[in-house]
Amino acid sequence: MPDTNALEALIQSLRCLPGVGIKSAQRMAFHLLQHNRAGAQTLAKALLQATEHIQHCDRCHTFTEALICATCLDQRRDASKLCVVETPADQSAVERTGAYRGYYFVLMGKLSPLDGIGPKDIGLKKLFDRALDGSVHEVILATNFTAEGEATAHVISEGLKSRGLHLTRLARGVPVGSELEYVDLGTIAHALVDRR
Amino acid sequence: MPDTNALEALIQSLRCLPGVGIKSAQRMAFHLLQHNRAGAQTLAKALLQATEHIQHCDRCHTFTEALICATCLDQRRDASKLCVVETPADQSAVERTGAYRGYYFVLMGKLSPLDGIGPKDIGLKKLFDRALDGSVHEVILATNFTAEGEATAHVISEGLKSRGLHLTRLARGVPVGSELEYVDLGTIAHALVDRR
Repeated sequence: MPDTNALEALIQSLRCLPGVGIKSAQRMAFHLLQHNRAGAQTLAKALLQATEHIQHCDRCHTFTEALICATCLDQRRDASKLCVVETPADQSAVERTGAYRGYYFVLMGKLSPLDGIGPKDIGLKKLFDRALDGSVHEVILATNFTAEGEATAHVISEGLKSRGLHLTRLARGVPVGSELEYVDLGTIAHALVDRR
Repeated sequence: MPDTNALEALIQSLRCLPGVGIKSAQRMAFHLLQHNRAGAQTLAKALLQATEHIQHCDRCHTFTEALICATCLDQRRDASKLCVVETPADQSAVERTGAYRGYYFVLMGKLSPLDGIGPKDIGLKKLFDRALDGSVHEVILATNFTAEGEATAHVISEGLKSRGLHLTRLARGVPVGSELEYVDLGTIAHALVDRR
């Protein structure tokens, strides 16, 4: 390698990005230095800005630069509904459907004992306080339909079910536009049980 | 998405990394903010340091923080040999073999007309000046054995062949440890022609 500590430091620090190993980090470093130094500087400033200013919303736990995020401050939403999602990207997906106008709670993760992620890491205490603040009547569990997502939904519903809240889960079923022949059997079984 | 311009800016600027689309950029941004803010700040500083201090070696064109890189300053090397490689990573691979003790010229790329990369972008003029500075007797073309690498080697040898230099190319042949049955036919054909 070239005798430059700055380059070595850059390659090592690029490895903190998820999914980036030593080869990708080298490729990224060479690309930035050779073809896009302006982009590298913009990225550096964006990283500093973001780590300095972004915190968690005091009500829904999502990322925000304010104390309370804009979604939580939106008075036109239905205060009786609280939708629990794993990530801001999931929240964005639900929001884009246009079919939901309540509030959110963003776990910023999921229970994953194998990775050492327990109830404290995903703010369950904060979620329970929020769900029991008196305004919420229905909690919609919109965690992913993966093993960890299901387990997370289960733990939340166990914690809230005796507290007089209406707990619902996103419906499982056949995706729009799909042909039964190509849908996995577990999905068809769920769609049969939940038929309407 | 959460209402944070700093987050949006971070996601957009992560897309300047090669191979990173919108989904990966989101995943990276969430990961850094949620799990590794210290890493993000280290990365930001490394980016700024690198873009500020790293330049091209005046002799071999590789990345260095000095005017001339340590390899070019190493007096114990054989000044009659110049090995031409595409990238610092390729140089590192040749260096690690321990089989070469001459100097290098790093093109920092390869001719690729489809991507608009011509002779000027890979410093061919500088290479020719270096090869014809009087000390070099042999130029070893160690560009990759891809279409672009071969074309680059061809252009360099065309430019230098009438100037009294000994031009060589890395040998093509069967890789160490491989079984003929699984080696592609082009490689076996080359190994037959170049048999010794």
